[in-house]
Amino acid sequence: MNQDAEVIAIGTELLIGGRSDSNSIFLADELGKLGIAVRFKSVVGDEKQDIVTAIHTAAKRATVIIMTGGLGPTVDDCTREAVAAATGHRLGRRKEALEGMTARLAQWGRTANVAQLRQALIPSGATVLNNPVGSAPGFCLTWKKAVIVSLPGVPREMEAMMLQEVLPLLRATVASSGLPPRSPIVRQLFHTFGLAEADVDAKLRGLVPKGAPVDLGLLVSPLAVLVSLTTKGSQPARGKHRDLLPKLAEGVRSRLSEWIFAEGRDQMEEVVGRELAKRGLTIALAESCTGGLIGHRLTQVAGSSAYLDRGVVCYSNRAKTELLGVPADLIAQKGAVSKEVAAAMACGIRERAKVSVGLSVTGIAGPGGGTETKPVGLVYIGLDGGTGQPITKEFRFHGDRTVIKQRSSQAALDLLRRWLLDRERT
Amino acid sequence: MNQDAEVIAIGTELLIGGRSDSNSIFLADELGKLGIAVRFKSVVGDEKQDIVTAIHTAAKRATVIIMTGGLGPTVDDCTREAVAAATGHRLGRRKEALEGMTARLAQWGRTANVAQLRQALIPSGATVLNNPVGSAPGFCLTWKKAVIVSLPGVPREMEAMMLQEVLPLLRATVASSGLPPRSPIVRQLFHTFGLAEADVDAKLRGLVPKGAPVDLGLLVSPLAVLVSLTTKGSQPARGKHRDLLPKLAEGVRSRLSEWIFAEGRDQMEEVVGRELAKRGLTIALAESCTGGLIGHRLTQVAGSSAYLDRGVVCYSNRAKTELLGVPADLIAQKGAVSKEVAAAMACGIRERAKVSVGLSVTGIAGPGGGTETKPVGLVYIGLDGGTGQPITKEFRFHGDRTVIKQRSSQAALDLLRRWLLDRERT
Repeated sequence: MNQDAEVIAIGTELLIGGRSDSNSIFLADELGKLGIAVRFKSVVGDEKQDIVTAIHTAAKRATVIIMTGGLGPTVDDCTREAVAAATGHRLGRRKEALEGMTARLAQWGRTANVAQLRQALIPSGATVLNNPVGSAPGFCLTWKKAVIVSLPGVPREMEAMMLQEVLPLLRATVASSGLPPRSPIVRQLFHTFGLAEADVDAKLRGLVPKGAPVDLGLLVSPLAVLVSLTTKGSQPARGKHRDLLPKLAEGVRSRLSEWIFAEGRDQMEEVVGRELAKRGLTIALAESCTGGLIGHRLTQVAGSSAYLDRGVVCYSNRAKTELLGVPADLIAQKGAVSKEVAAAMACGIRERAKVSVGLSVTGIAGPGGGTETKPVGLVYIGLDGGTGQPITKEFRFHGDRTVIKQRSSQAALDLLRRWLLDRERT
Repeated sequence: MNQDAEVIAIGTELLIGGRSDSNSIFLADELGKLGIAVRFKSVVGDEKQDIVTAIHTAAKRATVIIMTGGLGPTVDDCTREAVAAATGHRLGRRKEALEGMTARLAQWGRTANVAQLRQALIPSGATVLNNPVGSAPGFCLTWKKAVIVSLPGVPREMEAMMLQEVLPLLRATVASSGLPPRSPIVRQLFHTFGLAEADVDAKLRGLVPKGAPVDLGLLVSPLAVLVSLTTKGSQPARGKHRDLLPKLAEGVRSRLSEWIFAEGRDQMEEVVGRELAKRGLTIALAESCTGGLIGHRLTQVAGSSAYLDRGVVCYSNRAKTELLGVPADLIAQKGAVSKEVAAAMACGIRERAKVSVGLSVTGIAGPGGGTETKPVGLVYIGLDGGTGQPITKEFRFHGDRTVIKQRSSQAALDLLRRWLLDRERT
């Protein structure tokens, strides 16, 4: 029996897109632990007939179907009706669904209104899945050879129900099937910065032996080239492929060495935050073209107040002089976007804030403001660690304003990371 | 002939998700202008057989199939092979595909390597679509009753090719079909801030008459409750439904009045930026818990240097005193998270930067740092316009650190927006 999964996300607003889909990564990871691969994902609007079509299509190519969304109280929400129609079941109000929902609403001091009562309608023969976080119950039924699971689309509710209800159920189904347990699908991620995709690709060429049950993947974003190693769940690694993943992971690490700034779900701001905290160092920022983005990113990490003292966004030249003591003469002579001004900004913020390290960015984010000698995308990063010798680095980024800001912030944090690690070595 | 579209996004990394899908909104909008609705979206990994399955499924339910991704030079990229296999065509190297690619690479001072030559392989009978931005050409062919278009997944490349190549082609196909032109699907968006979804819903109840060919939708994000009005393309509005959309739009505007901060694709930072520029006002920021996010958002707008003078991220109490002149006594007495400190921060930054308006935020983003009287999510916004009477506003936000920071930045910009509009009235 093939044990592949299909995810069906329901909601007209999802067809239009424009939002990050955090449900997919969670579902792929959790199902992967059971050795179940997500091979298809369908997105369909709030139209009953379209949802029926999606269910019938999925049942032909997957044995685990996870549906998210369309379980709310409004008339738009028609997943219940669609599953009943697609599988030939009747909808009926189910006692345990109603009780769970009523209990949940009571905790909030509310009672179910007429619209919410629709949420207790469940296809006959389905198992009710309790929602410990929100009001809408889910359900699960077997049709033909597929297990169909219907969950709310709200990530917090979906995740809690997967962990508490669905995964134990799927585990039990696999166990009672008499089939040998499948090896889990394991994915290892490596985040690199500073190399082009083609260079990462070239460095990794030949790493994964032909026919090995591990996929090597590359994914490019403004902040990183991501390298993934993914085992194939259907083939338990045996013989020469035993311990293949740890060996390949070591290979990725040694080939990409210092270009790797993080592994797994780690972010650059968490990595540098940890390194700063570990060494008891404090930092202050002087941002021009990034406009506050580096401060925003560092403060995304809980506990960042332990090392981040302050930042200044010195968009005007006057602000650079008043807040950082960058000489107006220097700006006039070298230009606000220059390695000399980047160095002066880093020194200025470090001295004024009395911190261990000052980090600065000045550049041209565009689309206007570029010249022949100083084009859009020209960015200087400065770092002063109080040695009397500030470091500066020049970058020439491509892309729109958003991309140039993002890459500038990442380059600054990466320079800080490398400085922190070098400091340890010497 | 039904003229619905299906989008097939190709790439194993998309199955895993975690990234915002900006292609969908663009495709829905552009196809909508031709009266073509996107009814299904499929996501499939880089597996040839899975892509074939997706094409066959799509051809049964859509007449326009837009495929994105899988056209790159690596062996992972197998969209070309899959389309050829699914439609029974042979792949061959096409002269015009090769020439376009070679010309493009020459502009960058490069020549095609062996891997890139694969990109010139095109199914027999397909029309080559020129890529004016990147190296991979696309193609387009008719199979059974469907037009199948294959484009790169990179948004910049996909968008340029849709506008320059695909839409003119689809327009010509519709024109030559002899069918009456379809009325475009028009979507109008209204962004609100400050009302809960249920309150927006309640205010709009009964606005859209039963059976009217317009859908009302609500979409919630940390930054807004979005209201959409979407016409149904298949039914040209006639009789009592003529001019329905403008009438309904007026209804939304009058019912939600000042809660609407933007329409269409406009963002809050663009709205306040325009209002500041129009009045010739300048601004400076004093951010604590938002950590630079407001500065980052304002500087996302090109030309923001005309009104944003500077910002300070005063994470430590010492920074609040040194950079803004907030009395250490006041912080000790009222706490760093208090309306008095918010007011002092706004006044301090306005006076020191000598700008028209100072905007400040202080709050507890969590997860730590909360107390019984000052819980996580408690946020104060301050605004000083130099009248001697700074405005302060208290908020209690729910959610994780990221959500609290986002909502805080939005609340600050919304307070600024309302202040700018009130100023005009008086």
